[in-house]
Parts: sequence; structure tokens; C-alpha cells
Amino acid sequence: MSSSDIFIGEIIGTAVLILLGGGVVAAVVLKRSKAQNAGWLAITFGWGFAVLTAVYMTGSLSGAHLNPAVTLGIAIKDGEWGNVPVYFAGQLLGAMIGAALVWVAYYGQFHAHLTDREIVGDPADKAIEGPHDTKNTAGPVLGVFSTGPEIRNVWQNLATEILGTLVLVLAVLTQGLNDSGKGLGVVGGLMVAFVVVSVGLSLGGPTGYAINPARDLGPRIVHALLPLPNKGGSDWGYAWIPVVGPLIGGALAAGIYNIAFA
Amino acid sequence: MSSSDIFIGEIIGTAVLILLGGGVVAAVVLKRSKAQNAGWLAITFGWGFAVLTAVYMTGSLSGAHLNPAVTLGIAIKDGEWGNVPVYFAGQLLGAMIGAALVWVAYYGQFHAHLTDREIVGDPADKAIEGPHDTKNTAGPVLGVFSTGPEIRNVWQNLATEILGTLVLVLAVLTQGLNDSGKGLGVVGGLMVAFVVVSVGLSLGGPTGYAINPARDLGPRIVHALLPLPNKGGSDWGYAWIPVVGPLIGGALAAGIYNIAFA
Amino acid sequence: MSSSDIFIGEIIGTAVLILLGGGVVAAVVLKRSKAQNAGWLAITFGWGFAVLTAVYMTGSLSGAHLNPAVTLGIAIKDGEWGNVPVYFAGQLLGAMIGAALVWVAYYGQFHAHLTDREIVGDPADKAIEGPHDTKNTAGPVLGVFSTGPEIRNVWQNLATEILGTLVLVLAVLTQGLNDSGKGLGVVGGLMVAFVVVSVGLSLGGPTGYAINPARDLGPRIVHALLPLPNKGGSDWGYAWIPVVGPLIGGALAAGIYNIAFA
Amino acid sequence: MSSSDIFIGEIIGTAVLILLGGGVVAAVVLKRSKAQNAGWLAITFGWGFAVLTAVYMTGSLSGAHLNPAVTLGIAIKDGEWGNVPVYFAGQLLGAMIGAALVWVAYYGQFHAHLTDREIVGDPADKAIEGPHDTKNTAGPVLGVFSTGPEIRNVWQNLATEILGTLVLVLAVLTQGLNDSGKGLGVVGGLMVAFVVVSVGLSLGGPTGYAINPARDLGPRIVHALLPLPNKGGSDWGYAWIPVVGPLIGGALAAGIYNIAFA
Repeated sequence: MSSSDIFIGEIIGTAVLILLGGGVVAAVVLKRSKAQNAGWLAITFGWGFAVLTAVYMTGSLSGAHLNPAVTLGIAIKDGEWGNVPVYFAGQLLGAMIGAALVWVAYYGQFHAHLTDREIVGDPADKAIEGPHDTKNTAGPVLGVFSTGPEIRNVWQNLATEILGTLVLVLAVLTQGLNDSGKGLGVVGGLMVAFVVVSVGLSLGGPTGYAINPARDLGPRIVHALLPLPNKGGSDWGYAWIPVVGPLIGGALAAGIYNIAFA
Repeated sequence: MSSSDIFIGEIIGTAVLILLGGGVVAAVVLKRSKAQNAGWLAITFGWGFAVLTAVYMTGSLSGAHLNPAVTLGIAIKDGEWGNVPVYFAGQLLGAMIGAALVWVAYYGQFHAHLTDREIVGDPADKAIEGPHDTKNTAGPVLGVFSTGPEIRNVWQNLATEILGTLVLVLAVLTQGLNDSGKGLGVVGGLMVAFVVVSVGLSLGGPTGYAINPARDLGPRIVHALLPLPNKGGSDWGYAWIPVVGPLIGGALAAGIYNIAFA
Repeated sequence: MSSSDIFIGEIIGTAVLILLGGGVVAAVVLKRSKAQNAGWLAITFGWGFAVLTAVYMTGSLSGAHLNPAVTLGIAIKDGEWGNVPVYFAGQLLGAMIGAALVWVAYYGQFHAHLTDREIVGDPADKAIEGPHDTKNTAGPVLGVFSTGPEIRNVWQNLATEILGTLVLVLAVLTQGLNDSGKGLGVVGGLMVAFVVVSVGLSLGGPTGYAINPARDLGPRIVHALLPLPNKGGSDWGYAWIPVVGPLIGGALAAGIYNIAFA
Repeated sequence: MSSSDIFIGEIIGTAVLILLGGGVVAAVVLKRSKAQNAGWLAITFGWGFAVLTAVYMTGSLSGAHLNPAVTLGIAIKDGEWGNVPVYFAGQLLGAMIGAALVWVAYYGQFHAHLTDREIVGDPADKAIEGPHDTKNTAGPVLGVFSTGPEIRNVWQNLATEILGTLVLVLAVLTQGLNDSGKGLGVVGGLMVAFVVVSVGLSLGGPTGYAINPARDLGPRIVHALLPLPNKGGSDWGYAWIPVVGPLIGGALAAGIYNIAFA
């Protein structure tokens, strides 16, 4: 794989990943969407099939890492670091493009949601939400872009992101991105998609499972830049956790791989 | 593949696609159906498995395009236009047959739904629906046949249909309909089905994801022709968007393919 | 395949199919089940994965027809009728064993459900159910065993069963039970399972999709025989439709196959 | 496969299985989780994809039994008992590690759930739960670790666990863990995952489908040891059923295999 194929493949693949992944959150949480309140199962399958679609498309071009934690795990496992900066750059850029496309696809829904009194700026909200007022720590609109914890606790939040990413990257390393240089292959892409659904269903409850630094940071930057009315803050105080946690998880996965599986 | 195999394969495949796809909407929205209110996840998986079933059946006969946007994308990619009119004709005819079969399968449910005061012609409806009165812009019965937007905005509606179709057709082009002339193959059909679920979950919220001109136009014609009482209008003012948007999306996908993947 | 392998394979496979298929209905509708009210999506995936499990187990033994409509379709397609009675006998016997095992697995739930005043024999039921009093035409306990229509209309009910079975058997014939005598194979079994989910989601609303004479008749006989208190009638007046409809559907599928695909 | 590979593979695989399987229950039942009330379908798919992930990771290392009932069934089928103690030890140890990791990942949620008056120690609970007061026989927090019956009935509970495990192990024996010593393979792992979803959906209603002695006993020991406030008892009176039932089911499956399939 040439550097330009990697760069283009990761941009396209991560853009599709975030368009579909951010899209399913927009579909479920924003007002005036046909999928409003479709539930957590819709969100987890939506993200899983987003991975499937993006891997299916770009596996032959770049190997479809689409995630700096995967790139890091593979680099540690293989001892090859030359293309790591190209992967990282493509992933972050692709994630930002994808987040902007979510805004295009749900333009009217964002506007309706943010300018509707029932949702924003109305003190009655707290009464409706009752004792779960921390549920939307990061706010429903930021949640379309980036993750946020239900309970803010640095060590737990970090641990949950580490564990989720460790499971994902270990699954990728053990059977996934193999030596043939052709990416995961069709069935491998399907399996990794279901691993992502699994991590979402099982470990997504506390933090919303970023498990991918580019998936969280790129859209957060776009959230900060977009001209959305009443959008609220971008929660930069939390932003380092879904970057550092997944990188630690990916490195740990490579360590376990090298000890137990190599 | 001979022209007659293509024509017959696309008629059968698109008829099955619309029978199952329109069927799941009927199952979820019509009264007196066991699946009433089964939710958005049921609709998106229902359409995905409708694609799977139709592709599984007719892949070896016609290549199972089942969608003029797919046919257009493949024609641009391959530079072969000879069979395009045969594909288009089979797809539109098949979609009309499928829509008529939905009416047969849900005959009693349509009648019960349309003649029940609680649903049609009762001013109390508006009170029940409250602030979401635009939710059923196209009405629940037209929704069994064709798509309609939650928020009417030509540019957003067009953009959403373009993006959804671009993702679908790019997935088909990158690994799908290959040179062997035998269609997608079993695993390819499974993957495309999950791509369709993905587009539905993630980009279906604003417009109901036609992402296929024949899927929308054929059933809309049948809705206009069927002798359903109180059926309401067929919303012809919107009808061009789910035709033009997907064709643009398919063409864009072929352009991206030719630039980045060829 | 020897006749005894076919007989044993069809008994085991159909018993597993009905244990898991009847089981998911029991899980969702009976009181004191952890899955109570899990919804239509649970039922349709439950039946689909029941097919997957049974085919996966017995495909190499008997070809895993597990359905007289499939056996009929294959016999018409291939012109071979010698083993048809063996298939039919194994399927009916297996379905009866499976239905009895559902009763064993949910013994306490059946008893709790049927002896609870809130469910059976309390005039208040009608008030609770409101205008949908025909929803449980066949009663929730018979529904664990056999299908029943939401709206009783012989021609529509027959048509819906014919269409659902036609789709299933045409999918099986076009890529399924092939010449190698080894049944569907692993991926084929997965695809047929998803076709069954599709038919359930899309065409199950009006009649509950028997689409298999043995699946409906065998458990109905067991319902008539079991010593369940307050179980109600077995609805024999409807029993011929889920037998005759699927057989017509299977024969039509073979006809379409022989004309369009052979 | 060496004994050390088996031991390490089963530890890692069963730890991942329980981290993801216990995790999905924590996600759905604990307060302050984004997935709270995501429903039974989320739980059953969560456990199925937990199996998929664990098998995908460790199939090449240990064959990915991950379940003493599977190990017993294979030992009876093959007549080879040498590695059975190694498998059992790895599975129990892995299950305990996995349960402890669930506690780490959901640390704040456990604390919030157990110290919240609305959930524990408030007499008003009974009023809220109404007639279903036996629904939480084992309590929602123990339910994150181990199974418990909706209706306590030794013979039914045992029978349900036997039937569920019989289906699982027969599916594994008939096409699963084959002679090549390389475990299930990718597609085999996918199929077994869906078999587990099937058993959950269809036979999980009465007892919560342990169908695996290590999956139930290991986490129960961890529940007894963990310093959780107000955690309640570990229900040791029931603990033998999800150990003995699955072992009987696995042995029966091997018996049926040897008679009907060998």
C-alpha cells in the first residue's frame, strides 16, 4: 500500500464511519427525525454497521484501520512505524469531514432541535428529566459529535475506555489485519463490526464508548467550529480521556498479543 | 447475462424487494397488524433483509442491481450502457408489482386502517399528535408505498438522499458487482444488506431513505392507482427528489470510485 | 442420504426448530418470563435463529428441509418424490416433539399464565384490550403453539401465507439446497435464516407467518392433547389455512423457478 | 495445542466472554448507564456477540471452548479427557477475572445503583413492582454476575438449563470444534454466536440461561467476595442448578451426537 492510498483510504473510510456513526446518534436523539427514540440497540447496531460499511469500502485501499488505537496496536505488534503519521492524519481529517456531513444530512433536525424551547433554555427541562439530570452531561447535540460520561470519574472513565479498546484491538490483532496487505477481508470486516456492536452493548453504558481517538476528537473540533445556535460548550475538559484511554487500550492489546498469541 | 435474464431477474428481484420492504412498513404502521409499533429498528432491518432476500434470489440471473442508482453507478464505472434501459424498465415494473402485492398481503389491514375514524378524518388526530403534526407529512398509508420528509426542505432532502445513495453505491462498486458477471455472491449480498441497514439507521431520519428511484416512484404510481378509500394524495410535489437525489448519489459514487479506487 | 438419516435428521431438526421457535413466543408472551414484552423484533429474530440453529445441526444429515413446503418445492423442481413421505413424517413428528419440549421448558410460566385471573376468565380483560379485542383471536397460549390471523378473512389469510412461503422457498431453491447432497452449507443456512427473519418482519403482520405446515399443525395437535388448565380451543377451523397456503406457495415457487431460473 | 496455550486461551477467552456478557447486563439494569432499560434483545445480542468476540480471539489458541459443558461434550464425543482439567481451570479463572473487570468498568454505576434509596431498602419498591415481586428473585445486582430463576422450581429450572445447553453443545459438536485443532473458524464462530442468541431469546425466559457452569459459578464467587455495599446474598441455594444442568445437557448432546450423527 502506497502512502497516498493509505491517506485517501483512511480519509474516505473514517469519513464514512463518522457520517454513519454520528448519523445514527442524530437520528435517534434529534427532534423531527423518523428514528427519534429508536433506542440504544439502534445506536449500537448503527455504529457497528458503520464500521462494516467503511471497512468493506476501504479495506483494499488502506487496510481500513480507521482508528488510531488500531494503528498503534498494529505498529507495536509489527514494529513498523513508518506510515503511522499518515494513518493518524487521514483518520483525523476523515472524522472531521464525516462530522460535517452529519450536519448537512441532519441540517433541519439540528435547527429544529436547538431552537425548540422544550429542549434548550427552558427551566422545565430539569423537572422532566427528574433525578437523571446528569444523563445528558455533554448535552444531546454534543452527543451527536462526541462522547461524554454518565458519571464523571476520571479513573473509571479512563478504565472503561481502556477495556473497550483493548477488546476491540485484540480482536483485530488476533485475526484481523493480516500479512497479506489486503485488509480484513469481507468476513473479517463483518466480525469486527459485530465486535464493535458487542463493545457498545456491553461496555458503552458508562462513557458512550469512544474506543477511537479520531472518532471523538475530530467531531469535537467540528462541533466547536460549526455555527449551531445554542449548541453549548464542547466539553474540552473531558476531551483527553477518549484520546488517551483508547491509545492505552490499543497498546495493552498489542502487549497481550505479543506475550500470549505471537 | 442475456437481456431477457436481466429483465426477468430485475422484475422478480425488485418485486421481492418492494413486497418485503413495503411489507415491513405496512406491518409496523397499519392497525390490526401483529407487528404494529415494532419500531424503527424493525423497519431498517426489514428493508435490509428485503435486499438480502432479493439479491440472494436474483444475483445469478441479472446481477441483482434492483436500483437505478446502482445501475447508473456501474454503467459510469464500466462505461457500458447497453443494458441500462432494460435494467431500468425491469426495476420500475418490478417495484410496481411488489407494491401491488403488499396491498394483497395487507388487504384487511389497509381497509381497517383507512376506514377507522380514529385514524382518518377525525379532528382529534391533531391533538393526539401534538407538536409533531408534520411527522406524517405523507400520511401513514402513503408511507407504506413511498418516502416523505419530516421537514420539507428541498436542498436538505436532496442532500440526504444523495449522501445515503453515495454510501450505498460506493459500497457496491468497491467490492460488490464484480467482473465475473455472477452478481454479488452470497457474502457480498449479506454485506450489502447490512450497508442498507446502516444507511437506514444513520441517514434515514430526515427523509425515510428512498436511496433508489424505482423503490419510490413505482410504489407511488401504484398508490395513485389503487382503489383505497380515504387514501389521500400521492404527494407528487415531492416525488422528484427521491428520483433525482439517488441518481446524483450513484453518479457521484462512480466518480469517487474512478478517482480514488480504480 | 439414506431414508433413516433423513428421518432422524428431520425429526431432530424440526424438534429444535419448534423448541426454539415456540420457545421465543412463550418467552415474550407468557407471564413470569424474563423476556415478557420483548416485542416483535425478538420474535422474528428468535424464529430466524431457530432456523439457523436447526439447519446448522442437521444440514449434513437430512438436508435440513424442516418444512413440507420446502420439501414439496424441491420435489417439484427435481422431479424426485421418493423420500417425500419420509420428510413429511419426520417433520410432523419433530414439530410435535419440539412443541412438547416448549411445554417442559416453560412449565411454570404456562401454569402461572393460565391460572392467573388477570389473564384468563376475567371480564376486565376486554376493557384492557379495548378496540383490539380481535388481536388475540387465537389466544396468547395457543399462539405459543400455532398461528392465528389478526383479521379472519380466508382469501387474505391464504394469500399472505402463499406469498410468504413463495419468497422463502424461492430463496431456498435459487441458491439453497443444491446438488451436492450436503444441504445448505454454513453460509447458506445463515442466509436462509435471515430470509425467514425478513418474511416474519414483512409478511408476518396479518397471520403470524406459519409458512410451514408442520410448524403449525404439529404444535396444534400437541396443544389439543396437553393437560393445560383453561387453555381454550385449538382453533381447528383455521388450521387448514397454514397447511394449504404454504403448500401452494412452495409449489408456486417451484413453478417460478422452473420457468425463470432453470 | 499445548496445555499452556489451552490454559492461557481459555483464561483470556472466558474473561472476555464474561466482561462483555456481564457488561451488557450491567449496562441494561444499572442506574446511570446510557443503556438502561435497553431491553431483552440487547441482553441476548450482547451475550451472543460476547461469545463471537471471545471465540474470534482465542479460537486458534485453545479451540475456544469457554464453557465446561462444551469441554465435557467434546471429551465424551472424542473419548479424550487429558486436557479437561486444564480447560475447566482456565474457564473458571477466566470467568472470575471477567466478572471483576465488569466491576471495574461499571464501578460508578454499581455504587450509584446500590446506594440509591429508590432501589435498595425502600419498602416502596414492592409497590412499584406489584405482582412481579419474584421477578428479581436474585436481585438486579446479583443478576449482573449470575443467573436466577423467575419461578423457583428445581425440576423445571434444571430441565430448562439442560435443554438450552443441549441445543448449544449439539450445534457445536455437529459442525463446530472439528478435527483440525484450529477451533471453530471465523464463520463457525459467527454461527455459534447466533445459536447463543437463539437459546437466549427462546429458552432464556425461565432461568436467564446460564448454559455454562463457569459463566455462572465464577462470577457468583466474585459477587460473594467483592466489597459492594447492600449487595445482598449470592443465592448459593440455587448455585448448583446452573452447574449441574449444563453439564447434563452437554453430556446428553454428546450422547445424541454419538447415536445419530457419528
